[in-house]
Amino acid sequence: METSLLKRFVVGAPMPLSLARHERLSKTVALAVFASDALSSTAYATEEILRVLVLAGSAALGLAIWVAVAIALLLIVVAISYQQTIHAYPNGGGSYIVARVNLGPTPGLVAAASLMIDYVLTVSVSVAAGVAAITSALPAFGNLRGVRESGRIFAVPTYLFIFTFGALVLTGLIRYALGEVQPLTETVVHPATTLSGFLVLRAFASGCTAMTGMEAISNGVPAFKEPEAHNAAVTSRWMAGILAVLFLGLTLLAQAYRVVPVEDETVVSMLGRALFGRGAFYFLIQAATALILILAANTSFADFPRLASLLSQDRYAPRQFAKRGDRLVFSNGIVILGAFAALLLIVFRGDTHALIPLYAVGVFISFTLSQAGMVRHWYRERGPGWRWRLLINGTGALLTGVVTLVIAVTKFTHGAWIVVLLVPILVLMFQTVNRHYALVADQLSLEGYGGPPPIRHTVLVPIGDVHRGVVAAVQYAKLLSPEAKAVYVETDPGATRRLEEKWIKWGMGVPLVILTSPYRSVLTPLLEYIDHLQEEQGEIRRVVTVVLPEFIPHRWWQHLLHNQTALLIKGALLFRKDVIVTDVPYHLAH
Amino acid sequence: METSLLKRFVVGAPMPLSLARHERLSKTVALAVFASDALSSTAYATEEILRVLVLAGSAALGLAIWVAVAIALLLIVVAISYQQTIHAYPNGGGSYIVARVNLGPTPGLVAAASLMIDYVLTVSVSVAAGVAAITSALPAFGNLRGVRESGRIFAVPTYLFIFTFGALVLTGLIRYALGEVQPLTETVVHPATTLSGFLVLRAFASGCTAMTGMEAISNGVPAFKEPEAHNAAVTSRWMAGILAVLFLGLTLLAQAYRVVPVEDETVVSMLGRALFGRGAFYFLIQAATALILILAANTSFADFPRLASLLSQDRYAPRQFAKRGDRLVFSNGIVILGAFAALLLIVFRGDTHALIPLYAVGVFISFTLSQAGMVRHWYRERGPGWRWRLLINGTGALLTGVVTLVIAVTKFTHGAWIVVLLVPILVLMFQTVNRHYALVADQLSLEGYGGPPPIRHTVLVPIGDVHRGVVAAVQYAKLLSPEAKAVYVETDPGATRRLEEKWIKWGMGVPLVILTSPYRSVLTPLLEYIDHLQEEQGEIRRVVTVVLPEFIPHRWWQHLLHNQTALLIKGALLFRKDVIVTDVPYHLAH
Repeated sequence: METSLLKRFVVGAPMPLSLARHERLSKTVALAVFASDALSSTAYATEEILRVLVLAGSAALGLAIWVAVAIALLLIVVAISYQQTIHAYPNGGGSYIVARVNLGPTPGLVAAASLMIDYVLTVSVSVAAGVAAITSALPAFGNLRGVRESGRIFAVPTYLFIFTFGALVLTGLIRYALGEVQPLTETVVHPATTLSGFLVLRAFASGCTAMTGMEAISNGVPAFKEPEAHNAAVTSRWMAGILAVLFLGLTLLAQAYRVVPVEDETVVSMLGRALFGRGAFYFLIQAATALILILAANTSFADFPRLASLLSQDRYAPRQFAKRGDRLVFSNGIVILGAFAALLLIVFRGDTHALIPLYAVGVFISFTLSQAGMVRHWYRERGPGWRWRLLINGTGALLTGVVTLVIAVTKFTHGAWIVVLLVPILVLMFQTVNRHYALVADQLSLEGYGGPPPIRHTVLVPIGDVHRGVVAAVQYAKLLSPEAKAVYVETDPGATRRLEEKWIKWGMGVPLVILTSPYRSVLTPLLEYIDHLQEEQGEIRRVVTVVLPEFIPHRWWQHLLHNQTALLIKGALLFRKDVIVTDVPYHLAH
Repeated sequence: METSLLKRFVVGAPMPLSLARHERLSKTVALAVFASDALSSTAYATEEILRVLVLAGSAALGLAIWVAVAIALLLIVVAISYQQTIHAYPNGGGSYIVARVNLGPTPGLVAAASLMIDYVLTVSVSVAAGVAAITSALPAFGNLRGVRESGRIFAVPTYLFIFTFGALVLTGLIRYALGEVQPLTETVVHPATTLSGFLVLRAFASGCTAMTGMEAISNGVPAFKEPEAHNAAVTSRWMAGILAVLFLGLTLLAQAYRVVPVEDETVVSMLGRALFGRGAFYFLIQAATALILILAANTSFADFPRLASLLSQDRYAPRQFAKRGDRLVFSNGIVILGAFAALLLIVFRGDTHALIPLYAVGVFISFTLSQAGMVRHWYRERGPGWRWRLLINGTGALLTGVVTLVIAVTKFTHGAWIVVLLVPILVLMFQTVNRHYALVADQLSLEGYGGPPPIRHTVLVPIGDVHRGVVAAVQYAKLLSPEAKAVYVETDPGATRRLEEKWIKWGMGVPLVILTSPYRSVLTPLLEYIDHLQEEQGEIRRVVTVVLPEFIPHRWWQHLLHNQTALLIKGALLFRKDVIVTDVPYHLAH
């Protein structure tokens, strides 16, 4: 009761299903809702590239822009690929669905596993990024309170981010064009390693974090206003465009201002400082960065439960994830995601910065499977222009596939091995759950079922004393069966005599069976008596209902003072066949 | 089932009550069993005195022997006092019993609380004393496997300790008499503080740890062979004698060899090294010390459950402590003691050395109350020689009372405040439990009870689908009441139609009630329907039995995949008046 009140307080009043349509999003709001994850990565993607290249000395930093251009090209291909997915799967074409429908269950599960790992990583990393206080409050509120209400929450920080980062890039480039540029530093970093092809690939792999979150819109097509697919595709183009411009612009600026990555300040902060000084606008940039990182984590809180719900509907995840919560989103998934992210934070404490590059692996696995699924889709359908569409998605699949390998190899020792290990484990779990549900469905099927065999019934009330609670239990037992019996385990013959006297007065005519116990155990004689009752009958099974009087105390700590024997009996009977234990509550007033 | 198998493995096969008499202990075995706690303190009592005195410089160490003599005298008075207790309370005269019977419930509870704190402290300190590995295995085995078996375990280390420490003292004193003594160190420690009366009292208080464990025999009189009281008294004299000799001897040696306490070596070790070199015998002394400290902890594992059982029988502690375990000792108390000691170790991690002096406070509170109780006892009885006996116990009470104050004051800031704070808290807890049990007994009393009011009965089976598990539950519900009804909460009218068709075939004639749910909640309509049923009747209460089909999966993790709705319903109905929830288990084969 109390927990449900608490839940109501946190997530708001329940909302009937018919309201769901009015919760649809306009394009501007949708951009804010779905793009935060993707855009937020521009806050660190350039820096990730620089951090790798600087290992080969300052001179190697000049390569950053070429790496960024390669990533931007990849981004455009992927964006176009996803446009096609949006139109082909207007009911939501997440990687799981597209891969499962077109490539089969296992590729679908691989995509799902990769994404789930990503969602958890996103939350952990964002929370670890110094915003624990705000995130732990916002995500639950933002999402559970309905998508549209949450849209409003999203709009301000996302557009603030786009505006401040856009201004940063624009100002920087104009000044650069005017020749007003002064290098931020004269420091020359000496090479720690030689500049190799592998290092450039590693820089590329690191920069690919810029592309995380691109699939968000294709997952959420049904949340758009009609025409859903069209609006989603337009929004998706806008998102990709903004992402590419900000990412390339920041990398170009970093080059122009000869930024060398350092431990204690971000590249964006250095650029902001150089262009605007440590004034109000600089702090606005920093605040926008912090806010959009929180919202990126929040996106996972929407995506993870949605994916878990899909898996659950397909019987790959426990059934409770399928259920929509009162507020049209999926509370169980939200709770689980939060728990896993917290666990990760605890286990990898302090090491979460190292987790940032990891999630590129999962993202690109799901990109690849999703594009490959689309290739299959076009080949199957062979509608007008299918060759062209297939070519686009094929290019996307090929490129993202190669990038997946590049990331997995160059980042393997930096943590990618964790993801490489976890994906098959998760897939195996999904399959195990699925097999179990199938077996249960078989066992429960009424197909060819001849009906249950006939049963007999005995009701027993184990008692240790005679008091009002026992009297209530015996009264109830008589309702269940006119042949109910009370059972007493004798440990002291004197006590038995006193009990029998009380029983004559209060037993309501119910017979009292007295069992002796040489070892002072109350349990063993009772269990033996039940065995004896059940063996007595020949063919027909005997179900024994054990009625236990149970005290419901007034205060929680008083639970510790009661029902110990009842608990013992319950524990011993828990998994016995044909034994049913029923507690008859007796409410104590003090 | 599994836990009970585990318990059997750890504690051994059950033992009928009639064997209890054969478990009695001879004097030599009893000395080993009961004296280990008391004797073990000689391993550090001298050192505790020196550690305080050295604060006033090396010169002050000369006072140690006088402090030790004072403690030895006190020890003799207390020993004689306890002889009297043993004879007066041959059924076990622990401080709790003696104080409660003679002084009233609250002093009894104060004594009990002090002792309980001590038992926990003893275990924590001993475990912390570097013997965690052995102790965590031994105490449970040693005690649970019957007192006599445990006696055998005790005999070797206790007599080894007496022998090695005896040899140490004897050899040292002989050499001293022969003038063969060379000071261990020439180091002169300069005073950190002035030698004050308070410092000497503090040294005395520290040395009083030598007396911990003296009450053990008076608690355990019934464990002795007949004549119990006589044997116990003789053993008690031996224990006190050995304790006094070893303690005084070691202090004298420390003086003779001018031992200055240091951080990284114990006084006993220094003496052993000086007298025997780092040879086999030196290591035997060290091993004997380690072993007896483990056994001292083990003593608490016997005493704590015994005290908890007494409190429980008097309704001051939860009833489950009263129960004797299968092996004639009290498993619940053992588990709780272990848990508290572990908790203390975790909370005070590293600071446990500081806890050693603490337990003197609790011990002396219980000494004082026990002696004071005896004074009252003799005054009430006024048998032959009562004045003399009263004088002895009176002296004991007075001295231990003063010492309690001395310890509490001189050690207050060193941790005694914890004990001073905990004792009243525990006493309050005992009294609260007692009051609760009394109130419950009142509520359950059949005195003047007119019998239970008449009730009506309805059986409901909430269903979400029709399958073999549901069919089994409906069959059972029909046994409970011919008027049983199935209840279905409609969330999708199409599904309802399909369900109704199935019901016609498998419903066994039980009517199906269909409830509609605008908010897709399964719970609310069900709860409202139950309310409606219960309101319908006028005067007579209606008890509603809710029968829930419950899957019992084959493997534990499969529990996570089932029974979610059942759990929800159970949670919502848990504390409803006149609603009884019954699970009908359906065993899954895979």
